[in-house]
Amino acid sequence: MAGAALIGVDWGTTSFRAFLLDAGGAVLDRRESAQGILKVEAGDFAFVLAAETASWLRAARVPVLMSGMIGSRQGWVETPYRNVPVGLSDLASALVEVPFEAADVRLVPGLKDDTGPMPDVLRGEEVQVLGAMARLGIESGCFVLPGTHSKWVSVESGRITGFATYMTGETYDAMRRHTILGRLMGEGDGAREAFDEGVREGARHGTPGALLNRLFGVRTAGLFDRFAPADLPEYLSGLLIGAEIADQKGKDVRGLVHIIASSTLTERYRVAAETLGVTTHTAPEDCVADGHMAIARLAGLV
Amino acid sequence: MAGAALIGVDWGTTSFRAFLLDAGGAVLDRRESAQGILKVEAGDFAFVLAAETASWLRAARVPVLMSGMIGSRQGWVETPYRNVPVGLSDLASALVEVPFEAADVRLVPGLKDDTGPMPDVLRGEEVQVLGAMARLGIESGCFVLPGTHSKWVSVESGRITGFATYMTGETYDAMRRHTILGRLMGEGDGAREAFDEGVREGARHGTPGALLNRLFGVRTAGLFDRFAPADLPEYLSGLLIGAEIADQKGKDVRGLVHIIASSTLTERYRVAAETLGVTTHTAPEDCVADGHMAIARLAGLV
Repeated sequence: MAGAALIGVDWGTTSFRAFLLDAGGAVLDRRESAQGILKVEAGDFAFVLAAETASWLRAARVPVLMSGMIGSRQGWVETPYRNVPVGLSDLASALVEVPFEAADVRLVPGLKDDTGPMPDVLRGEEVQVLGAMARLGIESGCFVLPGTHSKWVSVESGRITGFATYMTGETYDAMRRHTILGRLMGEGDGAREAFDEGVREGARHGTPGALLNRLFGVRTAGLFDRFAPADLPEYLSGLLIGAEIADQKGKDVRGLVHIIASSTLTERYRVAAETLGVTTHTAPEDCVADGHMAIARLAGLV
Repeated sequence: MAGAALIGVDWGTTSFRAFLLDAGGAVLDRRESAQGILKVEAGDFAFVLAAETASWLRAARVPVLMSGMIGSRQGWVETPYRNVPVGLSDLASALVEVPFEAADVRLVPGLKDDTGPMPDVLRGEEVQVLGAMARLGIESGCFVLPGTHSKWVSVESGRITGFATYMTGETYDAMRRHTILGRLMGEGDGAREAFDEGVREGARHGTPGALLNRLFGVRTAGLFDRFAPADLPEYLSGLLIGAEIADQKGKDVRGLVHIIASSTLTERYRVAAETLGVTTHTAPEDCVADGHMAIARLAGLV
């Protein structure tokens, strides 16, 4: 395609997203599929990448920059973790080459935060966050990337200085589908009030173990008809998201939190944060492509 | 059987236990099976009870006193919940009759604690705790009954004054079997050190939401070889049990905690409590039968 300069790929556990970019960083074309790394048969990542980008690469043999779980132990090539603080230039100087016939393919390394009792890690979110910073023209900020594993990322002077992972989405699924809590739950749209009450209960003062007790409250809320069956999933969701936001509010969140997520999750976190007195801003979509372009420039790929 | 006076039945979600008792409360015979209420086909509880107690009832038509989830919405007859404080005589005066041809069958009601933001409930543990009190000859104390849903029960002047449920066991299973945490875990005996480190990490100061973050530490502990695959389940178990005990330690636990559980779980909780500076005492087995006999006497059944 005329003017194409780079293909940016955000390849996660459950999804594949690719962007064809011109030298100015504008998105010329895009592809999205459910071919996350866990769905790729026999680990044949080269086949999937070739299939998804064939039409683009036939037109112009541009380099490919990939980020996300594709660089993990379950991915194509395992890249080492870089300890925080990490900025765009640190990532650009640590790209890992991947053998691929049709193009020059590089992987962005993952990040490690060793400041807590156990290390924390992320892969892919660093490009989204630094891309959003570039797009917004800011040098410091706090970001949340909700999902299966929700990530809270702090940036100062253009470098990611720390982050924390919360298993909020995966815990929600596991508790709803694989514990007694699902028994009293119904399908359909739940009430906003149930979500709000969950947020407040999850954020209430207490120790880590209190969460194990409050989860049982989802059952008794159903037993005593505090909420209708369809509202119970909302209460559970609020309980977990409220607990997550309150934990960050007590630590790293000062002022505004930028949310990077799908529109559904963005709204859920925006509402919960508002309930807890935390102001949010919705980061632009596709900011991951801005991150890919910025890193590619610093690495001399474009 | 000569001297038989009562059949006490502790009928839970996953197990059935019955005791044939003489008028002095001595156990003449016992039966135990995996016929928990969720395994009883088509809700035919009368059939299971008749089959399990047929030989005893043929010899002597004694009354039957049942407690546990058999009195829940998923059980035989749903009994109402009694609000705390509740003692043996309160239970004895609130027994619910169950239609059964071969004997006089009564159900012990469940308990409700309405003092928190959400109500808490229990069924069956009240008989175990009050039975243990009778056996130990004490009037006040703190009890923990670990399991799928761990119960902490406070007793003052012979009455249960409050309790709290923690979804510790069920959360452990759900996280191990149905989240990414199971991926790096191995089978076999894990190291005591991993359990101990989990207990300390779970009990560390923090908010309820911190638990969602610390759970992700089970994954990174594996990623960075802090623990061998077989040790990771121990670390997860310690994390949850440590969080549970620390939450109670900050609230209701003063002095000694009596543990009522299977020997495996008793040892796990004893070790964790010791690590956190909480002294424990192992309650006698079969104390549920003492509770059944005490209630039956007060109700004039024996």
